[in-house]
Amino acid sequence: MKNCLFVLCDGMGDRPIFELGNKTPLQFAKTPNMDKLSQWGEDGLMDTIAPGIRPGSDTSHLALFGYDPHEYYTGRGWFEAAGVGVQLQPGDVAFRGNWATLDNGNIVDRRAGRITEKDGTADLAKALNGMKLESVDGVEVIVQPSTEHRLVVVFRGESLSDDVEGTDPKVTGRPAQKARPRIEDEPSRRTAAALNEFTEKALGILSTHPVNANRDLPANYVITRGAGSVREIPSFEEKYGFRGAIVAKEGMIVGIGRVLGMDIIVPEGATANVHTDLVSMAHAALDALKKYDYVFVHIKATDILSHDGDYVGKARFLEKIDKDFLGTVLEKVDLHETLVVLTADHSTPCELMEHSGDPVPLVVTGAGVRLDDVRHFDEISAMKGYLFRIKGSDLMPIILNYINKAEKYGA
Amino acid sequence: MKNCLFVLCDGMGDRPIFELGNKTPLQFAKTPNMDKLSQWGEDGLMDTIAPGIRPGSDTSHLALFGYDPHEYYTGRGWFEAAGVGVQLQPGDVAFRGNWATLDNGNIVDRRAGRITEKDGTADLAKALNGMKLESVDGVEVIVQPSTEHRLVVVFRGESLSDDVEGTDPKVTGRPAQKARPRIEDEPSRRTAAALNEFTEKALGILSTHPVNANRDLPANYVITRGAGSVREIPSFEEKYGFRGAIVAKEGMIVGIGRVLGMDIIVPEGATANVHTDLVSMAHAALDALKKYDYVFVHIKATDILSHDGDYVGKARFLEKIDKDFLGTVLEKVDLHETLVVLTADHSTPCELMEHSGDPVPLVVTGAGVRLDDVRHFDEISAMKGYLFRIKGSDLMPIILNYINKAEKYGA
Repeated sequence: MKNCLFVLCDGMGDRPIFELGNKTPLQFAKTPNMDKLSQWGEDGLMDTIAPGIRPGSDTSHLALFGYDPHEYYTGRGWFEAAGVGVQLQPGDVAFRGNWATLDNGNIVDRRAGRITEKDGTADLAKALNGMKLESVDGVEVIVQPSTEHRLVVVFRGESLSDDVEGTDPKVTGRPAQKARPRIEDEPSRRTAAALNEFTEKALGILSTHPVNANRDLPANYVITRGAGSVREIPSFEEKYGFRGAIVAKEGMIVGIGRVLGMDIIVPEGATANVHTDLVSMAHAALDALKKYDYVFVHIKATDILSHDGDYVGKARFLEKIDKDFLGTVLEKVDLHETLVVLTADHSTPCELMEHSGDPVPLVVTGAGVRLDDVRHFDEISAMKGYLFRIKGSDLMPIILNYINKAEKYGA
Repeated sequence: MKNCLFVLCDGMGDRPIFELGNKTPLQFAKTPNMDKLSQWGEDGLMDTIAPGIRPGSDTSHLALFGYDPHEYYTGRGWFEAAGVGVQLQPGDVAFRGNWATLDNGNIVDRRAGRITEKDGTADLAKALNGMKLESVDGVEVIVQPSTEHRLVVVFRGESLSDDVEGTDPKVTGRPAQKARPRIEDEPSRRTAAALNEFTEKALGILSTHPVNANRDLPANYVITRGAGSVREIPSFEEKYGFRGAIVAKEGMIVGIGRVLGMDIIVPEGATANVHTDLVSMAHAALDALKKYDYVFVHIKATDILSHDGDYVGKARFLEKIDKDFLGTVLEKVDLHETLVVLTADHSTPCELMEHSGDPVPLVVTGAGVRLDDVRHFDEISAMKGYLFRIKGSDLMPIILNYINKAEKYGA
């Protein structure tokens, strides 16, 4: 085989759900194309970081791209900023943020009524971008909207630090947190002070902003988290000797791709939610395989439905991925040329509505792969497959081996 | 789930025994409650340190509590001393010891006829405690009895070292060893000299001690091993953010618990041998689950019977654990709230009468755990389970994941 199509369904892994007859959504859903991949391929379980560790999407993607997150991960802000086109410089500190609603001193909605781009988030960001801060000297403020209710806040200047706890209280009904340094040094104190002044001034500016004039849940507050600074990281091409492409819309995944110097493909109709056009994404992936040796497709909505605890919706969306995306792919793809990988970055059990440390199912399909007896792609069947239970860091070497691009270790 | 009951049967793992129809004691024993745990849970094999490594109970317990023994382990003396209530200070060196019988210059019994507390070991310790040494200046000698034939010897003073080989010959029919430095430096030489003088003087004092007046195998000698000094170690609560309790009687396990700042519960009737009241231990564990998020129960006698090579006794005692301990627990425990873990710290094959590096069986049971096909809890069946073959260091993250106390790594 000569190239790889890597299909990642965010948060796809789950636990048995009583209401689904003690099946996981993946077991419950009718997914004949996923099952074909299992029948034609080798299956297994994967701990994207290590057994029991609850991964974020950022650390797990780094591991799946073959980058040790313990070496490279500084916080999600870096990738989120790259995702919206802010090229960070060494010394910058970036935060992920949400447009949120503050009422009577409490955060009443962490997503400002799920505000989106079409409601005018670009205008809100513009109103905050370039803000002058008085508590700290010479700090430039960069604010960019991201997908839906998300934004990116970057501080650029001397003596800043990413050892800062942001202002996101994570729950509603409580006051936003004050930003605070995680360690007691001057750069961390300086950065926390800058973030607190920014947050206070933003409230004043947003409260009277025309975008909020008729909103029940105005986007009058910015909550921040995931401080990240820039680290030296080899590009995907430097590391592997060939170019990789990412088919995705989700800001953070696009950001990781940009940081690794991969090409980003956003197909017509692709979104980071359930409304994404999966047929269009499939065609974009098939096209990309003509030019790239590694094409990574990120499908976000499985994770969103899991965070909402919507196990029926998750099962139905898995069926949609199966039919629209995989159906289109399998009609066209040549499994003698292309290795197809299907897996998740982590489990998000609907019962927990949060990422968990349970392993995810994995299938690797293509000509020459050693076949096992697994006939159905799900978290339980996968345990009997040829790949056993591997770590996320094992997957890229396995892919390189099958697509004949692995360096020999030794002579 | 919100808390964890961890049941550890010391040295439970074994090898096939010809006389048991080539079954291990665990395969041979009738253990319906253990089998229920397997049927309701996910099974696997565990190398508490790493494949093939023969663990001590101390290093394996550290690993199972989530502490890397390569980072923290200095020798068993530290934990044994903590277990009998000696709070070590930085610079102290502690040895584990046995009361032994010397006859004609040879060690003829390493346990002085299995002397116990009721035979007066406290009086023997008192006679040695505070001994003045002449070969080394300013070294304070602390001697405390431990369970049964065991004791603790601590040297406190300047320039001591734990790089010292103790005096335990490990076998009978040979002279006791002279203590000797493991490396050639002054502190190690000083400590070896102190231990040799202590041992010589102890022989004089013990030989004429009234406790030994009528013993066939007098406790007239002290053999020592496992020199350990103190290291900085974070408490269990500092590490995980919640308190843990240990239900145990065995001195070294209690010692590890004390060193980690865990609460120690010694139920009425609990002992570190086959006479322990397993029903009482079960009730104590169930009570503790009302107050603690992590309750660790240590059952010692499986290891004792293995060291004696008594495979029938081991199988019978496993049946007793199954009925008295697990039967009581499973009647009361709510598996929607409590994760139950059953495993061993290492294998002690009856054929070897010593710890081995064979992996141990492991089962993790509770609501939401992904089910596998394993129907019987033993070393052979466990290999077909969902957990595959993990390391001891993986288990604490897996537990934290299931009881919803795992930190997310990334965002």
